[in-house]
Amino acid sequence: MRFASDNSSGAAPEIMAAVAKANEGFERSYGADQAMSRVTAMVREVFEAPEAAVYLVATGTTANALSIASYCPPWGAVFCHEFAHIAEDECGAPEFYSGAKLVLVGGAGGKMTPATLAGPLGRSGGGGVHGAQPAMLSLTNVTEAGTVYSVAEIAALTAMAKARGLPCHLDGARFANALVATGATPAEMTWKAGIDVLSFGGTKNGCLGVEAVVMFDPARAWEFELRRKRGGHLFSKHRFLSAQMEAYLTDGLWLKLATRANAMGQRLANGLRAKGATVGDSPANMMFPEWATGTHDRLEGAGAVYYRMPAPEGRERARLVTSWSTTEDHVDSFLSAF
Amino acid sequence: MRFASDNSSGAAPEIMAAVAKANEGFERSYGADQAMSRVTAMVREVFEAPEAAVYLVATGTTANALSIASYCPPWGAVFCHEFAHIAEDECGAPEFYSGAKLVLVGGAGGKMTPATLAGPLGRSGGGGVHGAQPAMLSLTNVTEAGTVYSVAEIAALTAMAKARGLPCHLDGARFANALVATGATPAEMTWKAGIDVLSFGGTKNGCLGVEAVVMFDPARAWEFELRRKRGGHLFSKHRFLSAQMEAYLTDGLWLKLATRANAMGQRLANGLRAKGATVGDSPANMMFPEWATGTHDRLEGAGAVYYRMPAPEGRERARLVTSWSTTEDHVDSFLSAF
Amino acid sequence: MRFASDNSSGAAPEIMAAVAKANEGFERSYGADQAMSRVTAMVREVFEAPEAAVYLVATGTTANALSIASYCPPWGAVFCHEFAHIAEDECGAPEFYSGAKLVLVGGAGGKMTPATLAGPLGRSGGGGVHGAQPAMLSLTNVTEAGTVYSVAEIAALTAMAKARGLPCHLDGARFANALVATGATPAEMTWKAGIDVLSFGGTKNGCLGVEAVVMFDPARAWEFELRRKRGGHLFSKHRFLSAQMEAYLTDGLWLKLATRANAMGQRLANGLRAKGATVGDSPANMMFPEWATGTHDRLEGAGAVYYRMPAPEGRERARLVTSWSTTEDHVDSFLSAF
Amino acid sequence: MRFASDNSSGAAPEIMAAVAKANEGFERSYGADQAMSRVTAMVREVFEAPEAAVYLVATGTTANALSIASYCPPWGAVFCHEFAHIAEDECGAPEFYSGAKLVLVGGAGGKMTPATLAGPLGRSGGGGVHGAQPAMLSLTNVTEAGTVYSVAEIAALTAMAKARGLPCHLDGARFANALVATGATPAEMTWKAGIDVLSFGGTKNGCLGVEAVVMFDPARAWEFELRRKRGGHLFSKHRFLSAQMEAYLTDGLWLKLATRANAMGQRLANGLRAKGATVGDSPANMMFPEWATGTHDRLEGAGAVYYRMPAPEGRERARLVTSWSTTEDHVDSFLSAF
Repeated sequence: MRFASDNSSGAAPEIMAAVAKANEGFERSYGADQAMSRVTAMVREVFEAPEAAVYLVATGTTANALSIASYCPPWGAVFCHEFAHIAEDECGAPEFYSGAKLVLVGGAGGKMTPATLAGPLGRSGGGGVHGAQPAMLSLTNVTEAGTVYSVAEIAALTAMAKARGLPCHLDGARFANALVATGATPAEMTWKAGIDVLSFGGTKNGCLGVEAVVMFDPARAWEFELRRKRGGHLFSKHRFLSAQMEAYLTDGLWLKLATRANAMGQRLANGLRAKGATVGDSPANMMFPEWATGTHDRLEGAGAVYYRMPAPEGRERARLVTSWSTTEDHVDSFLSAF
Repeated sequence: MRFASDNSSGAAPEIMAAVAKANEGFERSYGADQAMSRVTAMVREVFEAPEAAVYLVATGTTANALSIASYCPPWGAVFCHEFAHIAEDECGAPEFYSGAKLVLVGGAGGKMTPATLAGPLGRSGGGGVHGAQPAMLSLTNVTEAGTVYSVAEIAALTAMAKARGLPCHLDGARFANALVATGATPAEMTWKAGIDVLSFGGTKNGCLGVEAVVMFDPARAWEFELRRKRGGHLFSKHRFLSAQMEAYLTDGLWLKLATRANAMGQRLANGLRAKGATVGDSPANMMFPEWATGTHDRLEGAGAVYYRMPAPEGRERARLVTSWSTTEDHVDSFLSAF
Repeated sequence: MRFASDNSSGAAPEIMAAVAKANEGFERSYGADQAMSRVTAMVREVFEAPEAAVYLVATGTTANALSIASYCPPWGAVFCHEFAHIAEDECGAPEFYSGAKLVLVGGAGGKMTPATLAGPLGRSGGGGVHGAQPAMLSLTNVTEAGTVYSVAEIAALTAMAKARGLPCHLDGARFANALVATGATPAEMTWKAGIDVLSFGGTKNGCLGVEAVVMFDPARAWEFELRRKRGGHLFSKHRFLSAQMEAYLTDGLWLKLATRANAMGQRLANGLRAKGATVGDSPANMMFPEWATGTHDRLEGAGAVYYRMPAPEGRERARLVTSWSTTEDHVDSFLSAF
Repeated sequence: MRFASDNSSGAAPEIMAAVAKANEGFERSYGADQAMSRVTAMVREVFEAPEAAVYLVATGTTANALSIASYCPPWGAVFCHEFAHIAEDECGAPEFYSGAKLVLVGGAGGKMTPATLAGPLGRSGGGGVHGAQPAMLSLTNVTEAGTVYSVAEIAALTAMAKARGLPCHLDGARFANALVATGATPAEMTWKAGIDVLSFGGTKNGCLGVEAVVMFDPARAWEFELRRKRGGHLFSKHRFLSAQMEAYLTDGLWLKLATRANAMGQRLANGLRAKGATVGDSPANMMFPEWATGTHDRLEGAGAVYYRMPAPEGRERARLVTSWSTTEDHVDSFLSAF
């Protein structure tokens, strides 16, 4: 009954086995390992992007911060949702790496819309040299509220950004979960929808710690490599990052893991709804329902682990996340205790 | 016959087994895992430093850069050897994280001496607000030239720094190898010799990728945590860093691995000397002998892998590094081909 | 009829005369000039703050950015109004100098209130290491909307900040105008009301280009000096900054100039009201009334110069600023053309 | 007998008169003043560079730091002399603004040579992503040692830089003095000799505080403007910077002032030589002769003001600088006291 985060799960057996296997013998360091060549080829194939530049780092914050820094000048404004991980949960890493200013955009359910983006985007740059210059759009899918952007919704937002010449970033810490929830292909949800650079998450979905940065236009690849090294993010024994990502992409493991996580998420959401709870729009593996404090206490008493957040009128909001390692048993025990 | 770097070795079996074992079940993320508590306790015991703050990161560049940033203001001068890893091999990471200016100090064999440090240290700060302010001393042991500072040598240098009020950092990417080479205890080579913060290397000596930062005075611990997160270096599935370090420190594995690496280094150095080669002062696991180009070609032809660097008069310098996974066979084959 | 900005006025004759006089002979450079000693003494007396550290820079953006950087760590959150100059008009200078994140606080008329500050301040820091740490409060008086905080209002906001241990900054680009509008003394509006560091503006109020940073507790004085130099803001011929500030403070010139500017502002505001225009709360020298586009065109046709900003329903908002050099004639001509 | 610095002189009467005159009436702020258009045209004409971008700032440190930041990425290496002002006297401003690493180049008399530049330049970038990337050359003329690069010497150094694709900066804090000393034209000493961006000094040579940055290729002009604002260096009452530079360039005033300063420098140098002192190569307005401590004491006793620096064997080095305001009397009194 551990639903606090997909980060509290370990690594899938296939990933761990690949790491152990990668340990054999000597290997070139700092990203020159043979497995990395295979990873690049696999990512390009998965994304139908034969020219893409692909780099591995160990944390999602790093993937986001380096992605943004590679496209956004120090005086740039990055438009993101007010609940975005880059705004709320990275202790200023994007600003540290890029110098940029985050401009917060509203929108229900953790999603910005053309209507909520229009104002901030339209005003930006109007002050000439006195204000930050519009520089980048950053979306998150699955969003921090557990909702999912459709491909069309992403495309509508990136179109607005591109009309002003801005490159577009997608924080895909839960990218696989978003794909599974929408049925879109990797290409459809990224470059075909206007995304220029993707933080392609592995850690939350069954890896030990690996994220790929995928730059669909490789023009800034060398700059990215320098920024990665300068940030301390280039692994000497890089083979262990490569091995994770290679296994993750082999035989569609990444989608299988996300399918499992989402299925458990839906089992949980539907089970709660069947018991009368209100569970908002949560098509993937994360939801934020609200209950009376007594219900929370009962669930915790029964052994459930998850985050509780204050809500009005003596109620509290739960943050429930399922992962590749969540079982039917976990879900059903939780529902029984509810 | 792979002698290019200790980074081209994999992880020791005990480390890999610990990582696999750490994968079981759910665990708290972002450093709140139970293993990290044990790691902290073990590091404190090993260093006889019951108050020390201990943090894990994945790369040596990160350990160095965050250590320096936590003690050095943006206008500070960090005194380091002109061949120091922080000066030559980190693409400016220490400056990026701290803002500081590295002041390069000379000295034969990769080691600064009181005589070579005196000038730069003495001049620093003389220009008042116009120049960088003397702020930190950073030493490396094993040095980048393969030599080793004795405890007394370290203490002599830190005493000069402390006379000016400067905290002292030790880049211990090969700390275990330095201990084995000198017979010193961890405490003797660090806080007892004036070191305030240590980059305690695990990666080169048999881990997948983990370094501990040990701050003997915990006053800046919280600042360090914020810097680590802000740099993207806080692992969500932190248990996998903890597991490596826990196994590394269990039953003295770290010293056993370094003992092995150093023994192979000495077998190689002595074997080369026995064959008439000049091998300088190299008491640990790294050496830089110089040969005719033809000799290099013959060695490579026989399958040896290592770095070659230009040297005068048709000769080239070799960089040979042994590791925990180097075998007598590797060494003897190399010597045979010599 | 120039009402675009108090920056479009020149320097008061007394200031210019002082600059010319300061030009005689040789003088020590980089802030060691004799006039600077006098300036420090005068500022301390004016503010009843005998220990205050006082420094001169040439622009308001610099005064703000260096003030914030001297009190706020790179991972800090600075709470400011969403219209604050530091947020809107300094191209990210505060973030560049400090690394900090600006947290925007709402509030009608350009003024935050305890009610609007409570939410952002209360939430800040709740995410532990994952979010920016609450670090500073920055107020502006006269505000960017032309309104003025009373001393009591300032004290109420700083009390909230201090309850969380945060130092407080006041952007006083129009500090003199705020004093004149409220009748408060310099000490009452600053340290007695909880302000720790003040950007004390001279430029807009009749100087060529000089702002004092006043730190009521001198603990960070040396750090400030290093930051100023490192930012390129330490003048070699510093005597020309000192001379301006000395003349500005001599015989209350600064208050006389602000009194003039405010009087012209009130003449303008009241004149407009008498003609039926709605002019909001604007007790100092800046106002933002709204008119039909045709009225704006007529005013410009008559030679008026000011900023126009879009407003709903075919109307536009004016930004009208008076200065020490605005005359009754200017105002009356504008009113005639209205 | 004030020879401590050209910074201890005031402003030339023509400059001060222009500032006073610029004070009349209202004027547009933030660089949109009419005088700035004239300044741009004049600089372009003086440098025979009709496309050049021209910007004004108030200090030499700012001119250098912004120039470097506009051409050098954060991971770049800037090659400069080990005595360069940017290395020794700006408290890290170039690194703060650019992120770059300064690589110190040796060379007698404050001048690098093709021979001393070749090593650092050749080695740079050899470590791939691990080291700073060669990015820029920065020369100073007049040098910090009082010597002067000839046009041919500059061209030889920039040719080496350009062979590696590096842009070239000239710190011309004493540019006028260097021109007068060599007889070169502004174009010959800059873009015709491979200089891409110039810090064109006014402050030391008779202005209150103004330096022009001249970018011979305007491609990075907008970036420069944003960096200037973000650094707090855009003056609201910019007219007072423009007025100085306009007067400085009018009727060759800048060259007349430097001619005067250099003539006094030569009178001093030759006078000292005539009295048996050794004065090194000092063709402009700055020299560093060495005397017995007793001589220094005698000179100071007679009222001379200048810097003294330790030298071997009971001697001390003097730093003597003449300026536009140095008179024959000053020089002759000094020589009499010698």
